[in-house]
Amino acid sequence: MVVKSGKLLVEERPDPQPGSHELMVRVRAAGLNGADMLQRKGAYPAPPGSPEDIPGLELAGEVSARGPGASRFDDGGRVMAIVGGGAQAELALVHERAAMPVPEGLDWPAAGGLPEVFVTAHDALFTQAALRPGERLLVHGGAGGVGSAAIQLGRAAGARVTATVRRDELRPEVERLGAEAIAPEGFERRGPFDVVLELVGAANLAGNLKALGMAGRIVVIGVGAGAKAELNLVALMGKRGTLRGSTLRARPLEEKALAMRLVERELLPLFDAGELRVPVAATYALDEAEQAYERFEGGGKLGKIVLTL
Amino acid sequence: MVVKSGKLLVEERPDPQPGSHELMVRVRAAGLNGADMLQRKGAYPAPPGSPEDIPGLELAGEVSARGPGASRFDDGGRVMAIVGGGAQAELALVHERAAMPVPEGLDWPAAGGLPEVFVTAHDALFTQAALRPGERLLVHGGAGGVGSAAIQLGRAAGARVTATVRRDELRPEVERLGAEAIAPEGFERRGPFDVVLELVGAANLAGNLKALGMAGRIVVIGVGAGAKAELNLVALMGKRGTLRGSTLRARPLEEKALAMRLVERELLPLFDAGELRVPVAATYALDEAEQAYERFEGGGKLGKIVLTL
Repeated sequence: MVVKSGKLLVEERPDPQPGSHELMVRVRAAGLNGADMLQRKGAYPAPPGSPEDIPGLELAGEVSARGPGASRFDDGGRVMAIVGGGAQAELALVHERAAMPVPEGLDWPAAGGLPEVFVTAHDALFTQAALRPGERLLVHGGAGGVGSAAIQLGRAAGARVTATVRRDELRPEVERLGAEAIAPEGFERRGPFDVVLELVGAANLAGNLKALGMAGRIVVIGVGAGAKAELNLVALMGKRGTLRGSTLRARPLEEKALAMRLVERELLPLFDAGELRVPVAATYALDEAEQAYERFEGGGKLGKIVLTL
Repeated sequence: MVVKSGKLLVEERPDPQPGSHELMVRVRAAGLNGADMLQRKGAYPAPPGSPEDIPGLELAGEVSARGPGASRFDDGGRVMAIVGGGAQAELALVHERAAMPVPEGLDWPAAGGLPEVFVTAHDALFTQAALRPGERLLVHGGAGGVGSAAIQLGRAAGARVTATVRRDELRPEVERLGAEAIAPEGFERRGPFDVVLELVGAANLAGNLKALGMAGRIVVIGVGAGAKAELNLVALMGKRGTLRGSTLRARPLEEKALAMRLVERELLPLFDAGELRVPVAATYALDEAEQAYERFEGGGKLGKIVLTL
């Protein structure tokens, strides 16, 4: 599927050829992410080396061919991966070190919607924020893809999780993931939080700082609702606080691969054990991509929107 | 010496009694710090457990008595320490784990001006910012106490150091410490820097972010020139940057003690080897404290102002 002047069209392209240590994957499912929406509007160009006009940051499927030296997976093996772009297609190239095995109990839609949000949430909570057992975690935007993953991860790691959820009707479902779900208004009175995961926007910044505990960490990975806000550095010093911005997409292969090795080791066993799940709100066929994108942008859902092939 | 309605007066007080694991130190030298100026104005109250009206955060002197269990130093041993307050006095109490041995070649004024700025700079650069060899370090306020310590530490650790220095006439001296000394104007065009040590104020924030390299760290430990500024979170995300506020004074004993153990292990050998030095701008007797504080606030100096007893 390609983006042309903001439209999503299914077009035939020559099959890609796997290079050294690359896998060609027959895609079975590919989750949608906020970056796809931006890319469609021309606001988030693909990084160098990724297909320019084929969106899609994550996929699951079967290995259909292997380039020279690729030895981590067998032909036909079930893999899931994060890519710089090009996932929303019948065939996609993946570096073997950017791919993970699909846990046995996971179906294709779940596997296709897992990598981006769970690797992002795992990296943000554990690598960036160094979340520890017993700590209090606040997730802004708990009903979103990364938010609902982060709630489950925080809970699985022994943190006590609070999540802001704008829509009343989604709060019960968010509570079932393991968080105390609250309205965004007045969240700053619910602290102190050791870690704040910001998935919404800069308007929360002053409140985050107010609600932050001593030596607390705020990790910002989404600011769709606004990017700029005043910061009081004396307040940050007084809390000995850390404010960190992070994105996964722009990182080089070795850093993405490291993040995925950690997820393989620390999270995939929890999917096998049934302690983590990928909430999937809806699936669409590739030629229904317009509807899928519309549904994604409409909000009001809990869980991933996934294209299936 | 006590602060009374903003005046500095020498008064007799009963000798303090060392408690469990405490040292009574006959103070020989006590450096001045920015926090003393604030405390004098009533703007920076002493933390709980420290003398309320005797200023002074650092000292060097001889152990004159030891409380029960204090075994790290002998009577008469030369020690230097960070305290929550009360250093600018003839006698001061110090927990033995908050004290360090004075390196052999160091005289009293240097030893009395060492702990606060070198422990602060070491903690900021290595513990907070995780500065690595070969990285580029920007120190804002390179002529100040912490700034001139940070320049030397960055240099000793293999970093390439740039320092902003407001006064033209101090730049040659800052260059002798091992930094490229530049005017503050236009510093944001001199990046990319891996680590920025902010000792001046929030007005630098936008420039710091602009000059920050990928995965760079900004550590804010001084904002005398202003605390509030607009922050662009998209820019922070794009750099995958970290902004951390830090203070040493408010930390509990165990954290201060850990910071001092690191300084003992990693810095004191460099003083012994002559690779680090404590720049002392001027010394004053205790009853000249008013002049000493005035000189400190006047600026335009490089190095510490130290009271000697």
